[in-house]
Amino acid sequence: MKNLSERDQKHLWHPLTQHQTAAPRLGIVKAKGALIWDEAGNSYIDGIASWYTSMYGHCNPFITEAISKQMKGLDFVMFSGFTHEPAIELSERLVEILPDNQEKIFFNDNGSTAIEAGIKMALQYHHNKGEKRDTLIAFEEGFHGDTFGAMSASGLSSYNGPFEDFLLKVERIPVPRESTIDEVLEKLETILENNSCAAFVFEPLVQGAAGMKFHSAKGLDALIQKCQENGVIAIADEIMTGFGKTGKNFASDHLQRKPDIICLSKALTAGMFPLSITSCTQKVFDAFLSEEVAKGFFHAHTFSAHPIGCAAALAGIELLNSKEIVERRSYIENAHGYFASQIKSHQKVKEVRSMGVILAIDLDIETDRYGTLRDKLYHFFMDQGVNLRPLGNTIYVLPPYVITNEQLKKIYNVIKSSLEIV
Amino acid sequence: MKNLSERDQKHLWHPLTQHQTAAPRLGIVKAKGALIWDEAGNSYIDGIASWYTSMYGHCNPFITEAISKQMKGLDFVMFSGFTHEPAIELSERLVEILPDNQEKIFFNDNGSTAIEAGIKMALQYHHNKGEKRDTLIAFEEGFHGDTFGAMSASGLSSYNGPFEDFLLKVERIPVPRESTIDEVLEKLETILENNSCAAFVFEPLVQGAAGMKFHSAKGLDALIQKCQENGVIAIADEIMTGFGKTGKNFASDHLQRKPDIICLSKALTAGMFPLSITSCTQKVFDAFLSEEVAKGFFHAHTFSAHPIGCAAALAGIELLNSKEIVERRSYIENAHGYFASQIKSHQKVKEVRSMGVILAIDLDIETDRYGTLRDKLYHFFMDQGVNLRPLGNTIYVLPPYVITNEQLKKIYNVIKSSLEIV
Repeated sequence: MKNLSERDQKHLWHPLTQHQTAAPRLGIVKAKGALIWDEAGNSYIDGIASWYTSMYGHCNPFITEAISKQMKGLDFVMFSGFTHEPAIELSERLVEILPDNQEKIFFNDNGSTAIEAGIKMALQYHHNKGEKRDTLIAFEEGFHGDTFGAMSASGLSSYNGPFEDFLLKVERIPVPRESTIDEVLEKLETILENNSCAAFVFEPLVQGAAGMKFHSAKGLDALIQKCQENGVIAIADEIMTGFGKTGKNFASDHLQRKPDIICLSKALTAGMFPLSITSCTQKVFDAFLSEEVAKGFFHAHTFSAHPIGCAAALAGIELLNSKEIVERRSYIENAHGYFASQIKSHQKVKEVRSMGVILAIDLDIETDRYGTLRDKLYHFFMDQGVNLRPLGNTIYVLPPYVITNEQLKKIYNVIKSSLEIV
Repeated sequence: MKNLSERDQKHLWHPLTQHQTAAPRLGIVKAKGALIWDEAGNSYIDGIASWYTSMYGHCNPFITEAISKQMKGLDFVMFSGFTHEPAIELSERLVEILPDNQEKIFFNDNGSTAIEAGIKMALQYHHNKGEKRDTLIAFEEGFHGDTFGAMSASGLSSYNGPFEDFLLKVERIPVPRESTIDEVLEKLETILENNSCAAFVFEPLVQGAAGMKFHSAKGLDALIQKCQENGVIAIADEIMTGFGKTGKNFASDHLQRKPDIICLSKALTAGMFPLSITSCTQKVFDAFLSEEVAKGFFHAHTFSAHPIGCAAALAGIELLNSKEIVERRSYIENAHGYFASQIKSHQKVKEVRSMGVILAIDLDIETDRYGTLRDKLYHFFMDQGVNLRPLGNTIYVLPPYVITNEQLKKIYNVIKSSLEIV
């Protein structure tokens, strides 16, 4: 009998994988809390919460019970012409915790499609007002997903390579740092003058796939303000940052100017169910109201507002601000800060930064995004029982909120050891 | 206390809905088998299986138990670097039942993203071979989803209106009928001569959103052959037709020439979980193998190959070819045929057609896709306790396989009555 790693190779095509050179995939059989187990019985601390989703711990019974209950009563019904309690309640809860200006909730199934809906809303917003605006503004090195619209906003060339000629028109600006705000603002002004800009799409404060890079809240505020003054719709991609990662419920909560549209997914359902949200202001929604049917938003995914996904999301939101989770979030934030101060002067470390439960360490070495050293580090961590996935020369940690103090300490220790092998 | 319909209006933005003129959404509270219930206690036969998903009946315990079991053991883990039993087993089962030439299984979350992955595979397939091919071929009135890549392949203008300037390059051909095969082939040849074509994207045999329109299998075979002879990747969109709708497991099973890529979703998980598949031949997969990392397919969705979704899909496939469901499929097919012969000569009926469990009736009247008569019919059906959603002047039925004989008879009777009010 072949094991999972062997059987995997026959018919599966994995994402982000060069199958000719990649190591065989590790067979995972069980997950609980902050741990996952492979088929040989080894456990690993899920140091990045399975791509920032499983924040309340794997197989969290509060969420699985909510799913069980929902799927026995109303498993699924189409969301055009019909509505249901889980979607309504989720919209009510989200509007309570989202920035004040967010009023309407539109549903999709994953991060990419939340961005697609956001971009389409922005383009049609102008179209409905009789304006043709055809250009997106986005940050260098942003990442927003892998469908054509989402790819257009993304600026990471390792993902877009073969598709660059097929994308929407986009103008890029660098992220603002405290010292470069005026410079970036000037670049934005030039773009606004020379183009007909529809939307500004950005990851607020933290660029995830770029390597957990931070930028200036004050600078982002200035960019959003300039865009909004020019009628450009500001779309915050909070797919990674949403639901507590940056210390507040949403990264946008660190800003003075609020985005017109916000995209959410990942931790929304604690990774239990593919669901995403594109929320927006009343002003955006109102631009689609008309006696003309065609001015409505004719965008739909079959599984929109899936009742089971909404039930999972409601359970997740209840956990997010529970006493226990708030305490864990605070503990992790402080622990990250202390660890950062310990290793920031290590000779192999170029920069350490942390915000909320996100910790990122740039190594003072050169490596490709998918290069040999990156793989060496990845396997070193796994051999020590920790799942961390370096992005180029950046090691980052984004643990489930329920990680124990000992598990967190183990991650720090393994990172310290790894500095000796690079 | 407000009811669901009233609460719905505060924060929800529904797909395919002009909120200024649409009737309030009906609050659905329960579903079981072929029935759904509203908050006032009225039941409705789900005559289109909630957009062709809930084929084994709502809240089917065989599927909900598979979900329950999976989410208690391994709820979720990222699918890059890792693998798991539900994904492996699903790939094995799918390759068994898909057309013989399908060898590799790539995962996405919904129909649109399955199409995006298919289009990207086709474009990169040529790119990796050093060829720049930039044009898609697609049918007039095709529908493939609402993200930018999927919209590009779609030819229904009611969906694409404001976005037509932002799409990939596409050349359209009419669907082949028995009498027009040569004409359509000639048009295809001209396109192949004048363009650099990457892929031909089509709904095989049945165009769903266009109004359950059928076309010639022989004609489609000829088109696929011509494309493949010219190195053009044939992408079958079986998102609606897959898993038994047309009488065979897949509509492609009616063809002699097999598609290079097949897209699946909807009934894949019986509507219980957003999951989709882009399957392909070994030849397509092999074009991505290289010592160069960048020749791999750098497309990923966070929830790829979600263990819970795979478990639901495995349960669904087991039901699909169970004795009970095979019998029901056959019963429905015969009943549709009998009903079609009964009403085909009705003076209000222009054409009746059926294939597998799909029945479509074109009325001999003019109406807009979202016009008044369409709405009148929709509300007539709902008032009689049947959920049918006419597409323009086409009434169609695509019931869950588990619909009872009495429920099916009721649908036919309600359709007969509706002919008296148009």
